[in-house]
Amino acid sequence: MTPRLNIVPFVSVDHMMKLVLAVGIDRFLIDLAAYIEEDFRRWELFDKTPRIASHSIDGVIELMPTSDGQLYGFKYVNGHPKNTRDGRQTVTAFGVMADVGNGYPMLLSEMTILTALRTAATSAVAAKYLAPNATDCMAIIGNGAQSEFQAIAFKALLGIDRLRLYDIDRSASLKCAKNLAGFDFDIAICASAQEAVEGAHIITTVTADKRSATILTDNMVGSGVHINAVGGDCPGKTELHRDILLRSDIFVEYPPQSRIEGEVQQLEPDHPVTELWQVMTGKAAGRRDASQITLFDSVGFAIEDFSALRYVRDQLQRTGLYEELDLLADPDEPRDLFGMLLRADKAAQITAVSS
Amino acid sequence: MTPRLNIVPFVSVDHMMKLVLAVGIDRFLIDLAAYIEEDFRRWELFDKTPRIASHSIDGVIELMPTSDGQLYGFKYVNGHPKNTRDGRQTVTAFGVMADVGNGYPMLLSEMTILTALRTAATSAVAAKYLAPNATDCMAIIGNGAQSEFQAIAFKALLGIDRLRLYDIDRSASLKCAKNLAGFDFDIAICASAQEAVEGAHIITTVTADKRSATILTDNMVGSGVHINAVGGDCPGKTELHRDILLRSDIFVEYPPQSRIEGEVQQLEPDHPVTELWQVMTGKAAGRRDASQITLFDSVGFAIEDFSALRYVRDQLQRTGLYEELDLLADPDEPRDLFGMLLRADKAAQITAVSS
Repeated sequence: MTPRLNIVPFVSVDHMMKLVLAVGIDRFLIDLAAYIEEDFRRWELFDKTPRIASHSIDGVIELMPTSDGQLYGFKYVNGHPKNTRDGRQTVTAFGVMADVGNGYPMLLSEMTILTALRTAATSAVAAKYLAPNATDCMAIIGNGAQSEFQAIAFKALLGIDRLRLYDIDRSASLKCAKNLAGFDFDIAICASAQEAVEGAHIITTVTADKRSATILTDNMVGSGVHINAVGGDCPGKTELHRDILLRSDIFVEYPPQSRIEGEVQQLEPDHPVTELWQVMTGKAAGRRDASQITLFDSVGFAIEDFSALRYVRDQLQRTGLYEELDLLADPDEPRDLFGMLLRADKAAQITAVSS
Repeated sequence: MTPRLNIVPFVSVDHMMKLVLAVGIDRFLIDLAAYIEEDFRRWELFDKTPRIASHSIDGVIELMPTSDGQLYGFKYVNGHPKNTRDGRQTVTAFGVMADVGNGYPMLLSEMTILTALRTAATSAVAAKYLAPNATDCMAIIGNGAQSEFQAIAFKALLGIDRLRLYDIDRSASLKCAKNLAGFDFDIAICASAQEAVEGAHIITTVTADKRSATILTDNMVGSGVHINAVGGDCPGKTELHRDILLRSDIFVEYPPQSRIEGEVQQLEPDHPVTELWQVMTGKAAGRRDASQITLFDSVGFAIEDFSALRYVRDQLQRTGLYEELDLLADPDEPRDLFGMLLRADKAAQITAVSS
């Protein structure tokens, strides 16, 4: 039998949740981190372009494509801060992986949940190379949708088991602590960002406000700390005081995008930054000493989504957690698209007569 | 009850065929042409960008986004000429329409069939403004997947009922003639392109060869003819001899893209071309006299796909010809994506216990 060329596997939100739970969220994050690391190590192979954005008053819709020459992936993602007012997500996403050789899509997947997972996995991979040794305590400032994923990823990959939570909305911290109750953390809910960073070796900032905020001021950041700056991710949206950046060694995903979207948008265009992939391949140094402040200025890059789609695709056959989508027209004879339409008409008439 | 925010309507290949047949292919093309014309008339409103292409040895994968400020649309489309060797389509496509206000996708649709329809509808709309009066005969050179759609569109919109078919592969012409048997055309299958153009007022070239071909030479094109050049649509792929272009008034969709992909890639970058939307709005002249040669150098632009998605979306409620896709994560509380995952786990455990 010939393969059914019209079918594209589809991973719905429901299937994605089932997949994460079947694999186990900590195992999922560890495996996903390995895929991300593998792709960062072959960074130079990829077609890279800053995301293609369509801006409006209320937000942005973006397409993030990339390819390693064998596989092609892209993500559709929006960012609309006002969405929470009517019960919608600020960010939703879906993605497609395709075969470069014939251009046929091989996977359509929800990516709202998957993006949360890949963002956390990327942060943890970066911290593996940048955080100080013997780290067990992390502050998380901003306790919204991304916070628990960060916590689990840092526990799974770095053994972080003490969390210091702070959010301007205390109910968000309570929600985060409640969600993490079964994951064996020692959790302190703090009354200020200042209190949260006390004793933390890693500071994760992951707030959602779309403006230039100062979640961390210079005096709050002691020597030797690793800052995982996740929330500042578009023009005009930053979280750290500029003085912190000037004291830090800054690591980014893809400089042309990070200089537009990341914390480094606050600095001169030629301010030195190190590409994370170069640290992973040994081309550049990561953490050099115990007193250095390292800063991962995360904005999220297309290659991380590519890795995530690649990982999900590799789970399909084993788990069967997907649907079959009739997405691609597949006439018996490739040049006969119109004939396929005519035959569908005849088939419908025959069905009508016989029923 | 609150709307189910996770759901995106999906029009599969099967539903697209049913939709075309339910509406009637000629009525579908007439209505679609009206949507395209409406969007061309408000051309200046749209965000426009040349397609974002990822090239490889075997072909290309492209994303074509655009927005009118209210709606956002993009198409994924590949072009792989070798695909027919293993029974695949050279071109497959799907598309998404989204709400600019909140970034949520509103429609996912197959677009392989829909692209064939919108390409034909656009050609016919252009010909309405450019073809000579009292036209009833069209030559179609290249009788592959697009040919029948062109024929039906020109019959529906311009009353063309005499066709002169030519293809280097006679079986393609026979396939085309057979498919069109029930549509009341007077059809002649010709032995050469030269023979096909005799007596034709409109010449449609729609061959698939990915190279600089010369389907039409200068001596074959008489005065007063309208050329609908559809097949030349990427760098290095053209169909017309350069001398024909120099004798013609050339009309294009979007010059920055057409100068890369269209027949006009053969000319100097500043060779005068007229934008089709300006003809429709009266800003530029279309056909001025009976002896003029007009050339629509069609490459296919994102706004036409936007119109097609908009048309399909407007048919959903009336026809019900769609599925509901669980594409968007929709936690009860927008900041509680992780909690949604946890509750899915509990729900699964409860199901397991009770079954």
